Amino acid sequence: MSAKPGVLIAFEGLDGCGKSTQITRLADRLGHDRDVLVLREPGSTPLGEQVRGLLLDGDAIGARSEMLLYMAARAELYERTILPALEAGQTVLLDRSHYSTAAYQGYGLGLDVDGILRIADEVICGRAPDRVVLVAVAVATSAERLAHGGAPDRIERRGTAYFERVAAGFAALAEREPERFVTVDGTPPPDDVEQSIREALDGVV
Amino acid sequence: MSAKPGVLIAFEGLDGCGKSTQITRLADRLGHDRDVLVLREPGSTPLGEQVRGLLLDGDAIGARSEMLLYMAARAELYERTILPALEAGQTVLLDRSHYSTAAYQGYGLGLDVDGILRIADEVICGRAPDRVVLVAVAVATSAERLAHGGAPDRIERRGTAYFERVAAGFAALAEREPERFVTVDGTPPPDDVEQSIREALDGVV
Repeated sequence: MSAKPGVLIAFEGLDGCGKSTQITRLADRLGHDRDVLVLREPGSTPLGEQVRGLLLDGDAIGARSEMLLYMAARAELYERTILPALEAGQTVLLDRSHYSTAAYQGYGLGLDVDGILRIADEVICGRAPDRVVLVAVAVATSAERLAHGGAPDRIERRGTAYFERVAAGFAALAEREPERFVTVDGTPPPDDVEQSIREALDGVV
Repeated sequence: MSAKPGVLIAFEGLDGCGKSTQITRLADRLGHDRDVLVLREPGSTPLGEQVRGLLLDGDAIGARSEMLLYMAARAELYERTILPALEAGQTVLLDRSHYSTAAYQGYGLGLDVDGILRIADEVICGRAPDRVVLVAVAVATSAERLAHGGAPDRIERRGTAYFERVAAGFAALAEREPERFVTVDGTPPPDDVEQSIREALDGVV
């Protein structure tokens, strides 16, 4: 019965790019006058958290299988949470989306990117994000920021060449869908990045 | 270096149709003069067994997510085990294959069957079974045989109408690919079923 359509904004970028901080800030700002739901992939459902555990802490997993586990967690999140929230007119902020699968498992691990995007389209029932905010930082910056965290997980241990392919993959995805992606430099202090995101999303949220 | 190409035979049918018994018998018969590998889906890899646990014992899982979890386990099994074994010239007997996903999650739960088969083709790297032995029994026969087992798992609890759709789905898949499927009546005593399978696979193994 809601006349106001829901809005779905995904945030993408390397770990340590600052997207979680920026999602929190955007949610705080938007939360004053609307329902905002913040979700992360993979996770945010019981199955998603179990799959997240398999993916990040498990033993060696093949590239295709890894890609499909992310898709399984995503299918659950869309079916149970994202699509109903959008239907109800909510604003959904998503920490990673199927574009991460295209970047990490496609460009990063060498799986066919178009094949991944075709599977994704089925998984998300054709409901792509209205905007994808790509928070871009150099791989060295990402590594430096992560070095202050805990022990690296299974994917974080893949090394610089891998993350260079992932970063280039994100840039390629942004070029493929210029109407959907906005790329924001994540290098400056958080206040500056927040201002860039505010401008980039002007008129969308 | 093997001159002899590997052979992949999948067995399909409702639980209780007798396919596991028949796979054991076939493996015993063939094992005298060749390498035979018996595998089950999902499972047969560490990740597969974890996914199997999620699928059969877990809480409610959406249809798409369930389908993708089977695909993830399958991708692992093909990449690590099935494709290398075929490459080495082995005979692989598979207890369930992607046709089960098409029958149970496609015809049974209403997901798009062609979409499932497209995803499957990517997952199995285009290497479909050389033959699929569909051991057909009535849903009532399946239920009767299972009633003597332990507590039903998450999928076994779905009820008769569901399994009728699955059984009809298997039949439809066999009709779609008559060159690949052989349908054998699983109702008679195991010795008779074994004889039917022996005749159906004459010239293949």
